This record gives sequence, structure tokens and C-alpha cells, in this order.
Amino acid sequence: MKTINNGELREKDVNKTLTLYGWVNKRRDMGGVIFVDLRDRSGICQVVFNRSYLKSDFKLAEELKNEYCIKVTGKLNKRTPSMINPNIATGMVELMCENIEILSKSEVVPFNIYDDKEINENVGLKYRYLDLRREKLQQTIKTRHLITSKVREFLNKEDFLEIETPILCKSTPEGARDYIVPSRVNKGKFYALPQSPQIFKQLLMIGGFEKYYQIARCFRDEDLRADRQPEFTQIDLEMSFASQEDVITLVEKMIKYVVKSVKNIELDEFPRITYKEAMERFGSDKPDTRFAMELNDLTEILKGTKMNVFSSAIENGGIVKCLIVKNNADKYSRSDVEHLTDFVKVYKAKGLAWLKYDNDAFTGVIAKNLEEEKLGAMKDKYNITNNDLILIVADKPKIVYDSLGALRLKIANDLQLIPSDKLNFLWVVDFPMFEYSETEGRYKAMHHPFTMPNNLNLLKTDKEKVLSLAYDIVLNGYELGGGSVRIHDSEMQKVVFDALQLSDEDIKNRFGFFIEAFKYGAPPHAGLAIGLERFTMLLSNTDNIKDVIAFPKTQSASDIMSEAPSIVSNNQLDELGITVVKEESDE
Amino acid sequence: MKTINNGELREKDVNKTLTLYGWVNKRRDMGGVIFVDLRDRSGICQVVFNRSYLKSDFKLAEELKNEYCIKVTGKLNKRTPSMINPNIATGMVELMCENIEILSKSEVVPFNIYDDKEINENVGLKYRYLDLRREKLQQTIKTRHLITSKVREFLNKEDFLEIETPILCKSTPEGARDYIVPSRVNKGKFYALPQSPQIFKQLLMIGGFEKYYQIARCFRDEDLRADRQPEFTQIDLEMSFASQEDVITLVEKMIKYVVKSVKNIELDEFPRITYKEAMERFGSDKPDTRFAMELNDLTEILKGTKMNVFSSAIENGGIVKCLIVKNNADKYSRSDVEHLTDFVKVYKAKGLAWLKYDNDAFTGVIAKNLEEEKLGAMKDKYNITNNDLILIVADKPKIVYDSLGALRLKIANDLQLIPSDKLNFLWVVDFPMFEYSETEGRYKAMHHPFTMPNNLNLLKTDKEKVLSLAYDIVLNGYELGGGSVRIHDSEMQKVVFDALQLSDEDIKNRFGFFIEAFKYGAPPHAGLAIGLERFTMLLSNTDNIKDVIAFPKTQSASDIMSEAPSIVSNNQLDELGITVVKEESDE
Repeated sequence: MKTINNGELREKDVNKTLTLYGWVNKRRDMGGVIFVDLRDRSGICQVVFNRSYLKSDFKLAEELKNEYCIKVTGKLNKRTPSMINPNIATGMVELMCENIEILSKSEVVPFNIYDDKEINENVGLKYRYLDLRREKLQQTIKTRHLITSKVREFLNKEDFLEIETPILCKSTPEGARDYIVPSRVNKGKFYALPQSPQIFKQLLMIGGFEKYYQIARCFRDEDLRADRQPEFTQIDLEMSFASQEDVITLVEKMIKYVVKSVKNIELDEFPRITYKEAMERFGSDKPDTRFAMELNDLTEILKGTKMNVFSSAIENGGIVKCLIVKNNADKYSRSDVEHLTDFVKVYKAKGLAWLKYDNDAFTGVIAKNLEEEKLGAMKDKYNITNNDLILIVADKPKIVYDSLGALRLKIANDLQLIPSDKLNFLWVVDFPMFEYSETEGRYKAMHHPFTMPNNLNLLKTDKEKVLSLAYDIVLNGYELGGGSVRIHDSEMQKVVFDALQLSDEDIKNRFGFFIEAFKYGAPPHAGLAIGLERFTMLLSNTDNIKDVIAFPKTQSASDIMSEAPSIVSNNQLDELGITVVKEESDE
Repeated sequence: MKTINNGELREKDVNKTLTLYGWVNKRRDMGGVIFVDLRDRSGICQVVFNRSYLKSDFKLAEELKNEYCIKVTGKLNKRTPSMINPNIATGMVELMCENIEILSKSEVVPFNIYDDKEINENVGLKYRYLDLRREKLQQTIKTRHLITSKVREFLNKEDFLEIETPILCKSTPEGARDYIVPSRVNKGKFYALPQSPQIFKQLLMIGGFEKYYQIARCFRDEDLRADRQPEFTQIDLEMSFASQEDVITLVEKMIKYVVKSVKNIELDEFPRITYKEAMERFGSDKPDTRFAMELNDLTEILKGTKMNVFSSAIENGGIVKCLIVKNNADKYSRSDVEHLTDFVKVYKAKGLAWLKYDNDAFTGVIAKNLEEEKLGAMKDKYNITNNDLILIVADKPKIVYDSLGALRLKIANDLQLIPSDKLNFLWVVDFPMFEYSETEGRYKAMHHPFTMPNNLNLLKTDKEKVLSLAYDIVLNGYELGGGSVRIHDSEMQKVVFDALQLSDEDIKNRFGFFIEAFKYGAPPHAGLAIGLERFTMLLSNTDNIKDVIAFPKTQSASDIMSEAPSIVSNNQLDELGITVVKEESDE
């Protein structure tokens, strides 16, 4: 058995006779002497094949090519001073090979394993087992393992039980599309793969387990974006007899424990802000707080201005907000600003007004039209100084927040204002219970329909004002996870379902058994789920979700390597009682 | 937050003011005083509601019914001597309630939570969240958690990485039926849910991870038996540069660690026997060694007997074996033995010959027909004594093993010869590589087609004699798990596929990418998988797999509680491009 990690050999191991296993990372043939960097998952150790020292046939050493898998035995030597390589951890030592065995040969690999060069993504996915040998994926997969290990260690110590919930579930579509699985035994019926273990974990609370967690596989049949995969994993937990404060305290402690273990960083207490404050200050419910450049309010100042674009927006219940790009106005030409205008239009802003301040004066089109005292008030209130660029949107609050929130991130990225080594965690609390869906013409649950509202009376009269006991944990501008205190009373649950305009039949078909369960002494409970892939990405400095999954799917939800999905036999379909609809031809 | 475990309160806690949470397990109303057994997941503590002591309204206490979920605060008292209950761990103490809050009421539950009475299985499954509150399921789910925690603790310490492999896979049916998932993006194509992570874990070895494990969900669409579920979990591991001996040593150490943690039992070294020996001695490749009563060979002794039933079986290449039921012949009447004859016929035995020995003489039909010296030889060789029953089968080896192996277990159960407190682990090694499938008319892989054969030359000439580097771990007569050294050479893999008579096209379609992967320096590797449910069952003294799964399915693969599988909307089916075939009516 392999007992040595090549990358951990040091001077203290010199003079030991060792057996190493691994892959030929690189070889250099110097005539009578061949040098091989022997790689295993821990790193690299140099192996020297010297014709006069090797007991095996030297031809074996000459035959070696990159990615051959070999076993070598020999004495570990200290390198001569000129051969010392300070760039690798084992750079002081090398193995003088006495015996070599080629365990497995390799054809020429489609890309180098030994370097970090970007490769074509599809080639990498096709030969995933080779890409997995490369440093980057070795590291991310190890980090993912370390995160889940530490999470489990922490939660086990806190007396949580890990309990597996089913993958073959009932379809209760709300929001995203379910993957479904035809049943052979119950023909015409289907299981659904779970989008989350939400209902089951609440049933486990009703079942008296008090503290549950699961590193749970979840599934969503959505049109994939770069950061989405059809299957993904959640760190999912639920606690009975616990408040929002209890969950937040526990999860914050857990995250600190994980980050300390993975990055050796001691985190300070996580700040908390309300949803309202997050929107007003950052234009986002998941603000990146690694840099300032917050949204500044101009509504009061611009009330009654003769500039119609602002005053009419305000009169119609809208607001005016601006970003102040400090000391960088010179980086933005007129056409650059026009590009920014196009950018905010994606978020439905009708336009982007702008000002520059330089040589102690405002410039730009609106500088001429806006009243002197309004400009002065802006300057004084927000401490505008030379070389500042002011970008203004006036519209309904949602549009102002969305457009300036996105613009804030864009500019910070463009100007490289974001320190990449920071980990800024943040709790966002007091989410609205409902949000209005323009497309569906009804209110939808912002978190999910099992979330506890803060005020039952308002439910019928003023849904927009009802807040919920929901909370998100945000890291560097990403929603890392979220949770809520749950409703534990079947009457209250019905009121919320009513507010969501679900029909009685719908409720019964989809959640009947769940509401029934609340009739038998359901304990108060609360929980949270964290996206494992996102957590791993953010602790690994990658923004590609595929980098943290051993065998990911492409954007079209395919596995290029194994060619999944694939056609199945008619016999299989017959047994399941389903047929594939033939696409109609245009001819 | 709940910080106290009710079941852990002891005399040392007396005089503390405590807040307890839990469910009313039972209540006794003694007029002015009400006693409640307050249950949480840790156990029970008695709470006393005394009208003169309670600050809350006494009506709240009077209102309590079983399974109400409550919060109580009060002082923990030592019970008066007459009230001490030695049967429960908290029997010395009781909480004098000052304040009570009813968190959640309960309707009358469909079965008692507080007792262990068997309930109708379907009622239990429908109200699974209530059945989960009962002692039995609380214990099994905790045991399951403890097993997986200890497995992870052990393997993490041994430098294994837990790596998640996909649930949405490619269908490569071999053996059991796959569950399949229609793809919306790639219409007409399907994913398959994995029957095991076998291929992926081997790819992870090729990917250089060296030591992998996963507590992995697996799926099989089979007609369910009592001990099968459509989804189940495996403790799955794989190691590079490891031999059979390495895997066996590691897994044995792991199992000992788990059993020590769960049962506080120190296990001795596990015995090992070959497949051949297991069949010859126990008629089974998963022998229960908690009792003796091995199969005894009579072939040599009965060679050339005038009794045709034996001599002709032997002449035709068959064997004769017997079980000797020591000192229990008086328990078996002639009609009892006839029942045993019917029993062995299920295993294709043509009959069951029998002898009794009592009063220093053989009795039974064949005692008259068998030669004196043959009877004497049997008696001497196997030390037959008074009140022994001898049960004989003569046939092809497979039939003799199957029938006597099963009969051995039946008799041991009937006579209660099996000590239920023993944990007899056993390694079975040197399995045949192939077994002939009468139904398919070809050889099939006994373990799986990726298993390393011990002799390549024999592959073409004498498949039956080829053994494999496969090994099973057996516990108390159950196959707990199994594994093998894998083929790591694509040429050898092709030879094995040929031996299995897989067509080139079949190989390419199903395993093409896998064989390709072996061309790039695949390391030698070996692994094993253990069935988590079976392990949990055997450590929990239950023989019902549903007892160790939080939300199990019925024998018809349904979830009675949530009513899965269920019909889905036509809209969902349209999006997936499939239709359900209408069952033809007979009318």
C-alpha cells in the first residue's frame, strides 16, 4: 500500500529507503540521468534515474512519458546545492531510484496536467478524469471535503443528527421545475426529485428529532446559467424550540469554525442589516460590503426642482438616488457614461443622469439645468470633491435599487475597487413576506410559504407591509444561504396559503398531508440552508461552479464525458408505460 | 432556545430552576395535582402541576392532553421516597412547574406514542411523523447517524476524501433496472439514477484522488422484497495503489471502530474463508457462523452404495451432504421431516433422505437399505450420538449447497440455536469470476465486470475456474458489503467484456468513455461498499429495513404519507416531450 505522500518529503526523511507511487508529471532526459517529477495528490517529489545506480533495466526509465503511473523504490537524498529548487516544498530532496515498476502507461494526454493553463472547457469536461488531476480541481475538491467535514464535526458536537430524506419524492411544483421519474409499479404516476428537503425536515421536527441536518442533494430543472447546475448540494439544518436569534447565532459560529479551518482566518462578528436598509444603501438584498460607494438619496434635495425628469418622478411616488464614484471621474469619457446608461436600461431605468465635479465645479448636461442651490446641497451633504463622478437614477424604488445596485458592482469591478482577499459576511433580516409577481398577477412568498409572518392582521389588508422571520446570510455580494422561522400552526398556514391565493384543492393535493401533520403538537421550529457549491467557490477564489463539482453538467445539462442524458431502449419505456413524443417535422 | 435534555436530569440538578420543552407523553390527574411525563428526544422527566404552586392558570394544566407540545419552567425537586420510579433514568427527580405555555395542541393521535405496541404498518407510514416520535424509530435513526458519523470520523483520519458523484447519470443497465429521468433540454433522452457510484469512483482514482469515500444514495427499480427499498445508501470507498489485503485491513479496522462506538463491543479479528470453503461447510457464500451444524460430506462414504439415489448422483458428478441436528431428533416427527422435504424442494432438491439415531441404532427408511458398514462409517466419522437427526441431500453441488444451506438456517431458527447477541463478522474471499446464467444462456460477472480476474489465460478456456480478487464482508449470515480489486488496464477489461459476450457496440455505447479513461495511466485500485441500511439493522436488532429509514417506501414503492408517486400535469409532460400510455381496457 502507498503510505507516503510525495509532496510531504523533507530533509528529515533523507537517507530513508522509500517506496513512492504516482504519475510522471514531467521528465528531463540528461543522457545517462533521467529526472522525473513524480506527482501524487499531495504534490511532487523529484526522482532520479541514474544508469549506474538503478537496479532495474534503464530502458524502463527511458520509456517513461508524462502521466505514466509508476512505483519507485530508492533512497531519499539531499540535493546538491546547485539542484535545490526553492519553488517546491520538496525542493531540498530527491529520490535516487533503485527499482522502478511501470504500473500503467499513458497515451499522450489532450492537455498538460502539470501547468495551470486554461483549457477548452468542453475538452476538460470530456476528459474530466484528467482535468481532475490538475492542481486547481484537486484543491477545490479537497476544500469542498474540508468544508463538509468541518460542518459535520461542528453540528455533531452541537448534538444535531444527520438524517437522510428521500430523493424519490412527491411533485409539489412551486417556483422552479421539478425533475420527474416515471414509476413502473404505479404506471402513469411520477416521483419528483426534491428541490430541497424543506417539507421532510419540518416533518422531522414534528417527529421529535429537535436538531436535524443533512448535506443534501437537491435538483432543479431550470434553464442553466453559468452558476447553476441541475443538481447541487445544500448544508441543510432545522431546529425545534429555536428562535431566529438561535439559528443565526449557531450558523454564524459554524461558519466561523469552517472558515478558520479552511482559510485560517478568524472572523469578527457578522454585521446585520434589514432588507430595507440593504436596498436603500446598496440597492441589493445581498450587498457586497467589501467596498463602500453606497447609494445616496437625492429625493429630498431634488424635490421641486425645475428639472422635470427628477421632480415628476418624485411626484409620482418615485425616488432619486445616486452613486458617487470618488476620484475617478477622469476614467469615464462621455461615451463610457453612455455605455453605463445602456447598462442600467437592462434594469428598466429610463436613463442615467450624470455630473462630474472637477476644478471645484460641476460639469455635464444637467449641471447647467439644475439649480445652483440643489447642486450646492448635494456637494455639501455627500462631500463631493474634485474628480468625482455622480450617476443618478430617478424612478420607482425597485428600478432605482436594481439599476444602481447593479451599476455599483459593475463600476467597482471595472475600477478594481474590491479587495479580493476579504470575506465579508453579513446577515440580512426582516424580509418582506410577499412579493408581487407581475407575470402571475398575484403575490408570491418571497422566502417560501412555510415562513412565519410577523403580523397576521396585516395579511389580509396590506400584504406589502407584512414582514417575515426570514434571514439570509450573504458573503461578498452572494446569497450564501437563507432560512426562516417556520409556521407551526395549521390555521396560520392556511391563512398564508389563502394570501397566496392557492385554491383549497391545490392546497389539499400538494400540502394536505403536511397541514395534517401540524395538528399533532408541532413544535416551534426554524432553520436554514447554505449552498455548498457557492460556499466552496467563495472559499476557493473561483467563480465557476463547475470547478467545485467532481462531475458537473454543461449549460445544456449534459455530461459530455459519459454522454448523459442518452436514449433508452423501447423496452425500458414500455415497462414504464410512457412514450417519447416525436418532434413534428416541418417538411 | 431549548438547552436541557429532559432525559438527562439527575439528582445533581435538584434545586435548579429550569425551562423544559417537550411533548406530553402521559398525564395523570389527581385532582388538585396533575402529573405529566414530559418527553423529548433524550427521554422523559416528570412535571408536577400543583394548583397552589403554579403561577400560570391551572386550567392550562387541566387542558393538557397527550402529545401537546409545551414549555414549562420550575424548580427541579427530589421526589419523595414513595414517588421514586426506578424504571426511568430521571426517576429520582421531578419538576415543580411554576409557569406553563402550550406551544401547540394535538388532536387525538392514531396510535400511542408512549408504548412499544406493534401498530398497523400502513397507519404507521401514513403518520410517519408520529411513528418517528416513538422509542424504536428514535433509536434506529440515532444509531444510523452514529454509524455514519463514526465512519466519516474514521475515514477522514485515514486521509480519505468524501467526494459527491452525480445522481443524474447515464443509463448503463446491467442486472437491476434503472430509474430514469426524462430530459427537458434534450428531449427524447433520459438520465438514469445510479445503482452505485462504481464507475465514478473508479474515474476518481484515475483522476488521482487516491482515497475516496462517499455515503452514497443508490437506486434500483426492482420488485421490492421486505428487505429492499427503491433508494438505499452505501458506505462506498475506493483506494489507489492498494491490494485486497489493504482494503480488508482498513475496512475491518473501520467496522471495529464503529461497533465499539455504537455497541461498546471490542471485536476480535474477523475470520476469513474462501468462497469454496463457505459453500462446502455452510452451503452459503454468506454463512451465519453464530452456530455450528455445518454440512458434512458423505460422498466418499456412500460411493458404490447399493442405494441408487446416492450412487447414481455421485456417478453423475454430484455429491452427497448431510446436516446432523444434534440431540434434537425427538423434536422432529415423520410429518415434520416431510415438511422439511417440501422446504428443500424449493431449492430444486429432488428429495431429503433422513436417518435418526437413538438407543444406539439408526432408524428410518434408509437405515434398512443402507449397508451396515456405510452407516458405521458415518457414525464414526461424524460422531453421531443418540437423539441425532441426519438430513441428506444428493444432487449437483449447487443444489446440495442451496438446499442444505437454507435448511441449516431454517432448523437453527426453529430450534432457536442462534445466539442473538453475537456479532459474527466474516470475510469471504476468492469468489469465482463468472457464474453461468441459465436464463440468459451466458456467463455473467459474479461481482461486476470491472473485477480483476486471478488468471487471464483461463478466461478463454475454462471460465468456471477463473477466480476473482473479490471479497465480501458477512455479518450474522447477511452480506453486509463487498468489493474487489479492479481491472486497471483497458486491454484486460476488453478481454473480460469479451468473456461476458458483450458486443463491441454494446461495450462502446455503455462503457466507451470508461475504457478510454484507462488509457491514461490508470492506477491500480480496489474498493468496497457496505449497505448502510443493513449495517444499521444488524446493529439495531431489527429485521425490517423500514425501521432504519426516516421516510421509507412501501413494497409497491409508494410513500403513503405524501402520496408519491403521483400524477403530474399534462403541461409538465408536454415540456418533457413524453406521454403516458393509456392502459387498454378489456371492455
